[in-house]
Amino acid sequence: MTGGSAPLPAAVEWGGDVVRILDQRALPARESFLLCRTADEVADAIRSLAVRGAPIIGVAAAWGMALVAATSTDLQPPALLAELEDAAERLRSARPTAVNLGWAADRMLAVARAQCCAVGATNQRVHEAMVGEALRIETEDRAACEAIGVAAAEFVPDPAQILTHCNTGGVCTAGVGTALGVVVAADRAGKRVHVWVDETRPVLQGARLTAWELQRLGIPMTLIPDGAAASAIAAGRVDLVVVGADRIAANGDTANKVGTYPIAVLARRHDVPFYVVAPTSTVDLATSSGAAIPIEQRDPREVTSVLGTPVAPEGTPAWNPAFDVTPAELVTAIVTERGVARAPFERSLATLAGVRGAA
Amino acid sequence: MTGGSAPLPAAVEWGGDVVRILDQRALPARESFLLCRTADEVADAIRSLAVRGAPIIGVAAAWGMALVAATSTDLQPPALLAELEDAAERLRSARPTAVNLGWAADRMLAVARAQCCAVGATNQRVHEAMVGEALRIETEDRAACEAIGVAAAEFVPDPAQILTHCNTGGVCTAGVGTALGVVVAADRAGKRVHVWVDETRPVLQGARLTAWELQRLGIPMTLIPDGAAASAIAAGRVDLVVVGADRIAANGDTANKVGTYPIAVLARRHDVPFYVVAPTSTVDLATSSGAAIPIEQRDPREVTSVLGTPVAPEGTPAWNPAFDVTPAELVTAIVTERGVARAPFERSLATLAGVRGAA
Repeated sequence: MTGGSAPLPAAVEWGGDVVRILDQRALPARESFLLCRTADEVADAIRSLAVRGAPIIGVAAAWGMALVAATSTDLQPPALLAELEDAAERLRSARPTAVNLGWAADRMLAVARAQCCAVGATNQRVHEAMVGEALRIETEDRAACEAIGVAAAEFVPDPAQILTHCNTGGVCTAGVGTALGVVVAADRAGKRVHVWVDETRPVLQGARLTAWELQRLGIPMTLIPDGAAASAIAAGRVDLVVVGADRIAANGDTANKVGTYPIAVLARRHDVPFYVVAPTSTVDLATSSGAAIPIEQRDPREVTSVLGTPVAPEGTPAWNPAFDVTPAELVTAIVTERGVARAPFERSLATLAGVRGAA
Repeated sequence: MTGGSAPLPAAVEWGGDVVRILDQRALPARESFLLCRTADEVADAIRSLAVRGAPIIGVAAAWGMALVAATSTDLQPPALLAELEDAAERLRSARPTAVNLGWAADRMLAVARAQCCAVGATNQRVHEAMVGEALRIETEDRAACEAIGVAAAEFVPDPAQILTHCNTGGVCTAGVGTALGVVVAADRAGKRVHVWVDETRPVLQGARLTAWELQRLGIPMTLIPDGAAASAIAAGRVDLVVVGADRIAANGDTANKVGTYPIAVLARRHDVPFYVVAPTSTVDLATSSGAAIPIEQRDPREVTSVLGTPVAPEGTPAWNPAFDVTPAELVTAIVTERGVARAPFERSLATLAGVRGAA
């Protein structure tokens, strides 16, 4: 562990009658916060990407629901439940494709329904139960990050040169992160780690967020252009690669931020292990392989400009797939909060993540 | 060939008593020109990277020498020769590692010496001879680009999806370019080409220069982040890769802009041919393999900022190797103005480029 570290601000924080959200759009230039006093303001923060990352937007949605219960002190339980159902719908639709968002809203609603329908229900009891459930969701997410760090410990030597892509850290989760959580856990365990941070064009999550987090944590790192990752790997300066995932198919094929697949190919060529690190909620057993994973196409202006500054001639067409798919054959292991999946991934993922597919 | 194309401005142009240089630093935002009226002003333009690219800085240096002869009308030949020798030294030292710079200055000096020492030498004859030699250097460079396009024609199908990295076009040469010249030649020949343009972080030569040239030429293209090249290749949307070279070792190992090596690895994985395109002056028979090629390390601020805008937290360390090395085994063929080199490259390169090593 290195000295001089400064704690990261919480990405999402409950304040009793306000949800404080770290505005990721302003990083690393400014650490500014949005103070959300209604569920709609939380939904707006999610929609505008002020808060991003599947685990943390689930947490934000849970606190948005708690906010409704906390601030509607003049309502009786049946009217409060109706308000909560409306709020859940608005939060869920803020980013309809994010799995954790609907999942968190559903958990909060289930608690609300149980409390509102109980004998002797009071607004105060509903409020307390919902704050308790949101806190559980947040705590579970934090614990998943820690468990991932423990599960991955066997893969991190001392010292370790670790290459990562995009941002999978504290601003994406209620805890230390997923793939970046592996780095943090190794640092805390006293291992001497150094991180090669891919800048991750076009949105620069590596340069803007991962470099910022590692600097705040006092963990040694070096920023590189995405095209230089191969040079670091070829020079023998990378011991392992850790990346997150946006969706893991049943066979282990993994969709992650564009630019992940070429790193996996280079890692294999140079015999460097390549680990996918994600909670089991990212495993989609209903998707059989990577070929079935839809790839989000984003605004070409993310490519033709950088932080608002044009970098190409006006009118230049650009292609901006947000993700690519790394075939399972290039993945050394998939690390989850419930343990490590290895080839053949069909069986091990079903065991770890499955209800339908459990062995 | 597509319609609506606008001619590219010449990167370097002779005006009788002025050398007009396209300022590449301002592209694509502005097409502005430096008017150099002395050899020192030409040397400054080379030093400041207003003009960059090995072939074109040789041409610029030649015109800088011609400028001395054109503007020193009051000198007798012996005094003019002394001035020319001084100017050659200042031009050569503008960028001491660029091979073409010293080569062009030497050619110009040889002509000057022959003219100045001739019976009946006059300033006017020296002047005319030097303008003639600079014009030959420029014309030869233009012809080399054309010859490369002819030599590469057999590799470009119709239609063709061509991926390229960095900038190897009209602003680097007196002609249509080297690797990008292959694209231009195919377009002129009526082939339906589409170019995937890697943006080429950190200096963005792809986004700033290649996209600008192709747009001006009316050749269809799509800009992509460097990390998305693998997605295009994996999706079967690339028929061939063409890249330039900064130095080609005797065994065919090729140093080129950082980010080239991972493209070569991906191309091989997906059975896409990978062509290195460069004049024979880029072949260095004295360097046996890529391991002996020194890799220039550039200012980390090129990585931590984009066109002057910071993209990472203050104090973030960065690694900025300007080049990487692609091993010869990944190179399908090396296309030069004298023909095509194929494996085993030692023999074919020596035949094309060699004096010392000619078979």
